Amino acid sequence: MNNNLLYERRQRLLGSGAPLFYQDPIHIVRGEGVWLYDANGKRYVDMYNNVPCVGHANPRVVEAMREQNATLNVHNRYLHEGILDYAERLTARHDESLSSVVFTCSGTEASEVALLMARAVTGGRGIICSDAGYHGNSTEVRKLSRAGAGSNSNAEIRAIPYPQRYRPISKDVQGEELTGLYLKEVQSAIDGFAADNIPFAGMFVCSILANEGLPDIPAGFMPRAAELVRKAGGVFIADEVQAGFCRTGRWWGYEVSGFVPDIATMGKPMGNGMPLAGVTAAKEQVDVFRKNTSYFNTFASSPLQAAVGMAVIDVIEQEDLCANVVDVGTHLRMALEDLQKNCEPMGDIRGYGLAIGLDWVKDRETKTPDREGAVVVVNRLKDKGFLIGNAGASGNVLKIRPPLVFGREHANLFLSAFEETMHELYVNNEN
Amino acid sequence: MNNNLLYERRQRLLGSGAPLFYQDPIHIVRGEGVWLYDANGKRYVDMYNNVPCVGHANPRVVEAMREQNATLNVHNRYLHEGILDYAERLTARHDESLSSVVFTCSGTEASEVALLMARAVTGGRGIICSDAGYHGNSTEVRKLSRAGAGSNSNAEIRAIPYPQRYRPISKDVQGEELTGLYLKEVQSAIDGFAADNIPFAGMFVCSILANEGLPDIPAGFMPRAAELVRKAGGVFIADEVQAGFCRTGRWWGYEVSGFVPDIATMGKPMGNGMPLAGVTAAKEQVDVFRKNTSYFNTFASSPLQAAVGMAVIDVIEQEDLCANVVDVGTHLRMALEDLQKNCEPMGDIRGYGLAIGLDWVKDRETKTPDREGAVVVVNRLKDKGFLIGNAGASGNVLKIRPPLVFGREHANLFLSAFEETMHELYVNNEN
Repeated sequence: MNNNLLYERRQRLLGSGAPLFYQDPIHIVRGEGVWLYDANGKRYVDMYNNVPCVGHANPRVVEAMREQNATLNVHNRYLHEGILDYAERLTARHDESLSSVVFTCSGTEASEVALLMARAVTGGRGIICSDAGYHGNSTEVRKLSRAGAGSNSNAEIRAIPYPQRYRPISKDVQGEELTGLYLKEVQSAIDGFAADNIPFAGMFVCSILANEGLPDIPAGFMPRAAELVRKAGGVFIADEVQAGFCRTGRWWGYEVSGFVPDIATMGKPMGNGMPLAGVTAAKEQVDVFRKNTSYFNTFASSPLQAAVGMAVIDVIEQEDLCANVVDVGTHLRMALEDLQKNCEPMGDIRGYGLAIGLDWVKDRETKTPDREGAVVVVNRLKDKGFLIGNAGASGNVLKIRPPLVFGREHANLFLSAFEETMHELYVNNEN
Repeated sequence: MNNNLLYERRQRLLGSGAPLFYQDPIHIVRGEGVWLYDANGKRYVDMYNNVPCVGHANPRVVEAMREQNATLNVHNRYLHEGILDYAERLTARHDESLSSVVFTCSGTEASEVALLMARAVTGGRGIICSDAGYHGNSTEVRKLSRAGAGSNSNAEIRAIPYPQRYRPISKDVQGEELTGLYLKEVQSAIDGFAADNIPFAGMFVCSILANEGLPDIPAGFMPRAAELVRKAGGVFIADEVQAGFCRTGRWWGYEVSGFVPDIATMGKPMGNGMPLAGVTAAKEQVDVFRKNTSYFNTFASSPLQAAVGMAVIDVIEQEDLCANVVDVGTHLRMALEDLQKNCEPMGDIRGYGLAIGLDWVKDRETKTPDREGAVVVVNRLKDKGFLIGNAGASGNVLKIRPPLVFGREHANLFLSAFEETMHELYVNNEN
């Protein structure tokens, strides 16, 4: 079936406008490691997907899923060791203060649990978020998503301008002073809730501000924001759905941002594609949440989730993928910085490990975001067999976020194609 | 590891109060068909779990999951035929007006989508629900759960007393008149929203009122309520998470209740334990939802969900499990009605197919719910190797809801144990 017919069927069966990537969407039929194959046999290096973190169709994950599914898969109102072994293994990777877990099926559900927990433990309602974040698609969680700094559509949510150094909130302000300006935004949101008689519950942001476009966060902002939040009686919730599981070269994004959250959500890479997500916090906080909500999730905390989640941690540890992320991430980053010198639109290179953002600009001086340019690059690279995306607050940040098994050899293939693309789009045009 | 140590670890790792079944929880390690096995090798007939509808560890589902997982499992922003084939197959089982699908990972997420969709297509906010329903655990969906008829905690939600014939809203009223009384409640909720200037969005109930305790619904209530709702500009949302997939002997609960919803949610049995749920509605309504929300769900609409969902429908159809439900359900129901004659506490036997509720009462005259009695029976049957639960608005309804592959032979084993239990608890005590 050709792509047009597939697209037509899709519009009919899934509704018009179910989101698709690329100007000419691709029809993917097979995956293996970092490779994806389309229906014509063309292969692509997957440099977008963080979910299949240990690689597409990883045989150990496939086998763990099969074996558990053939043995037992049932809800969590019977005793079962698997989920406890997994919870123990998972929390052992976290700061010791984060010792208990609530499992869910999706990042959205994890955000829901985190919000319910924050509100249960504080008795508050008001939540601070960033103005360009995304934490899920439910009615409540949507309120936190790209909430818009000036928006007052929901009195319980206040968005602050996301902290960044490339286009700072006040021009020419840097260093300690810049950190101070963003912290002022946090304090002013806290004060705003107080003025409106909305008891404060906490702050909820991605540890590395992934959806904001992976900005360089002004030094010390995260730990000091957490301090302000706690001083006001709130809890600090770190969204680790994108940042976690060695994406940054550390196990958790909060490690690279230098803080410890009170509550952390986890998701995407956790089950290598099997729906698996969760929330970790201190036992006392999880206890309060359980008591207040009688939370139960039919498909979560299952033996299947546990077996798959365990296999993913096994592979990450045994293949030392954290070290691979550091090695390949550094290699790729340095090569991109080299290319940047002769590539005007590559305004800024940011990120951590194998989460790299290239801020595409109309010119280096004004730093005007060039979303259209970014989209052209993304589609051109797709044609050459490399899958990346565009993201960020203005959609102008090239998002490079391959499976953790991405190697130097794949990075080198990409770098050639990227350089070629730059020549085609920019150098040749100038001649 | 003994159960006490397991329990202690569980309290520590998952938080105190993560829900468990039975006074002495059981430690289940293996499942096959309708059988569950504990760590000591004791086996139980599973008469509770509707999720593994085609049986625990069904080999066709296990193989479909393995094969797809070994081939491709990725999000839905690339084209893929599997999810379209599945959407086509699934909607073909529905009324032809329900032609498009939004897939999700859980019933809660499906309820979220249904609410967002109802509000998007009507432009309204007000939702009518039942006073003893359950549709999920997110912040918004929780508002619909056991909302309490008199509660005004949320102006956008109004709960009506759930329609029933056993303990009717007005004593000694029956038939057409009783239906009329419950319809008045619906109209009065609609009028209440209008009086409060809250634009009406619709009504959201389980097609067979499963959590309410499977009441006999006064004749014609559902289609006539849907009529009232539509006349007021609302949409009627049927929760098919428990009612769907042949549980009642028909594919959908709305078929036994004699109506067609505008929006239907699906979940639990859909993936036989793999997180898979969804919402179906007319394409026009799904289009509006897509346009309003840009909804995307990382783990949903995946090739894995599609392959597993397809295998479940394959087994249901090829083993004609709908017919099995009718056959075994009728057999079990008739035998229970026979036992009821000499069993005072079995006040009422209700339900459809293999969803059977036994309303446990202190005496037949007053119909006073006997939750404690029901709990004793549930635990005694567990000791004898039969897993059922207690549910309903007062927790006094014995809930019999086995996998669809439950056969007459299993029903007969249960009936012997049940009769024995009745003798032990009631007849002997009276001697």
